Amino acid sequence: MSLLVTGSIAIDTVKTPYGVSENCIGGSSVYFSMAASFFSPVRLVGAIGSDCPFDFAEVFAGRDVDLTGLEVRQHSKTFRWMGTYFDDMDDRKTDYIELNVLAEDPPKVPVSFKDSKFVFLANTAPKLQLQLLEQIEEPMFAAADTMDFWIERHLDDLKMLLKKINCLIINEDEAKLLANEHNLIKAAEKILSMGTKVVVIKKGESGSVVCDASGNKFVLPAYPAADVKDPTGAGDSFAGGLMGYIAQTGKTDFATLKTAVAYGTVVASFTIADFSVNGLTSIDRSDIDGRFEELRRLVQF
Amino acid sequence: MSLLVTGSIAIDTVKTPYGVSENCIGGSSVYFSMAASFFSPVRLVGAIGSDCPFDFAEVFAGRDVDLTGLEVRQHSKTFRWMGTYFDDMDDRKTDYIELNVLAEDPPKVPVSFKDSKFVFLANTAPKLQLQLLEQIEEPMFAAADTMDFWIERHLDDLKMLLKKINCLIINEDEAKLLANEHNLIKAAEKILSMGTKVVVIKKGESGSVVCDASGNKFVLPAYPAADVKDPTGAGDSFAGGLMGYIAQTGKTDFATLKTAVAYGTVVASFTIADFSVNGLTSIDRSDIDGRFEELRRLVQF
Repeated sequence: MSLLVTGSIAIDTVKTPYGVSENCIGGSSVYFSMAASFFSPVRLVGAIGSDCPFDFAEVFAGRDVDLTGLEVRQHSKTFRWMGTYFDDMDDRKTDYIELNVLAEDPPKVPVSFKDSKFVFLANTAPKLQLQLLEQIEEPMFAAADTMDFWIERHLDDLKMLLKKINCLIINEDEAKLLANEHNLIKAAEKILSMGTKVVVIKKGESGSVVCDASGNKFVLPAYPAADVKDPTGAGDSFAGGLMGYIAQTGKTDFATLKTAVAYGTVVASFTIADFSVNGLTSIDRSDIDGRFEELRRLVQF
Repeated sequence: MSLLVTGSIAIDTVKTPYGVSENCIGGSSVYFSMAASFFSPVRLVGAIGSDCPFDFAEVFAGRDVDLTGLEVRQHSKTFRWMGTYFDDMDDRKTDYIELNVLAEDPPKVPVSFKDSKFVFLANTAPKLQLQLLEQIEEPMFAAADTMDFWIERHLDDLKMLLKKINCLIINEDEAKLLANEHNLIKAAEKILSMGTKVVVIKKGESGSVVCDASGNKFVLPAYPAADVKDPTGAGDSFAGGLMGYIAQTGKTDFATLKTAVAYGTVVASFTIADFSVNGLTSIDRSDIDGRFEELRRLVQF
């Protein structure tokens, strides 16, 4: 079923102990779309400037990614991000950021996208996420990401958003910050009490925790990856695999959600194995399914 | 089958956001024995001074813990540790330490313990761990813990030890330090190349990773505990549950090891729910088995 994503499209420059990738394609909606397209058709909503060097038809060649919602703004410039990862690949430093189009009005959801049933609102101002969500007629399952900046400075907007979405996909530290609670399980319960029905907490190389309003819980380690070259996009790829699988099945029960989180975990493990989206362009669905079965075996006892 | 543990016995004072526990019983061999005794008889080897206020017959009442190896040294004092945990319960600060008996000659392994088949050498100088291990006639499966101090200052002794034991149970940061490798899976492989057949890496509230020399891997999240009052003893309880289950079955194949790690995880989750050993004295094996099944369900997809 139809899956819509709104988020950034970036020109990234990334340094890691394994090398440098200059002016490569990045951004939450790009990683998400790439990851989700293994499972379901994707509708991308995003904006770039006239300086954008990427041919998106080529970037998504062979994938069912509808670019009707891609706005090219002639008098604007594309979002740029430059960052460095250090030895442990756990934390990163932003060296440089140019918001450009991201500081302008958000892109509009095209009329032909308004019937989307599954929606992912990548990290941006909660007010914009709300505006984007309102343009969708009858979403069946809407998920959003957020970050510390919005929790600290736009909490009221974020709380409004939490009442409108079905699922929050959030980093561990940000979940604790949002809930003002150090214990992760208690933090999850507090976030659920804010209105969202499901919370998926991403713990990076330590996996994820999923809790829903009915008291269901799921804990999954990350895939034990020995090859990690560039963690950029891991979270958005995780969300893409997760939402892609949900859109593929058209179901949102907890069993489906667990499988979806496992698929998200697997797709993210391919993303981090190479720079930019190269880890995802070099694989196909059978690679994902193979590693999915491997992950299932790895946690069985 | 017979399971021997050598390690510390401590008078602990612990502060956490949930309260203070003054002059309570602690130490690696105490937590380990308490945890392992749910599964198997335990033989404890350790030393205390004449100041020790605990009645060990009472501490271990109803448990099959053989105290023949408990040395009471009339002219010595018991090991004391005082520490503080902060809000996130992740890291702790040692406020005060008095080695006392731990700075003296290690306790001897009693003759009646020399036929032990399963051995756990809790964290101490690797040279002492080697001396203790040499007193066991024919160990079937010996495991050891270590810490940054020994890795940084007594690496040669530690490398000798790694050739003599079957399993190293070690914290994540210490595994990376020992292997001089930031990626955990690569670190595990490097540690296996040092001679031990199995490495179990403890990641605290993020679970554990197990790798063996045959290429088997197992990843398990921690039990998602909402009640965490005092993390002291979590690692030794984990090792106790793990080794206790192995001693109970008498088997050391990878499937048994996975189940053992899951039991260790479950026992540790009870330990951290209360101060000192109270989390373990208030439960029985059926509580452990119940949570074991719950953990199995929590990771299934």
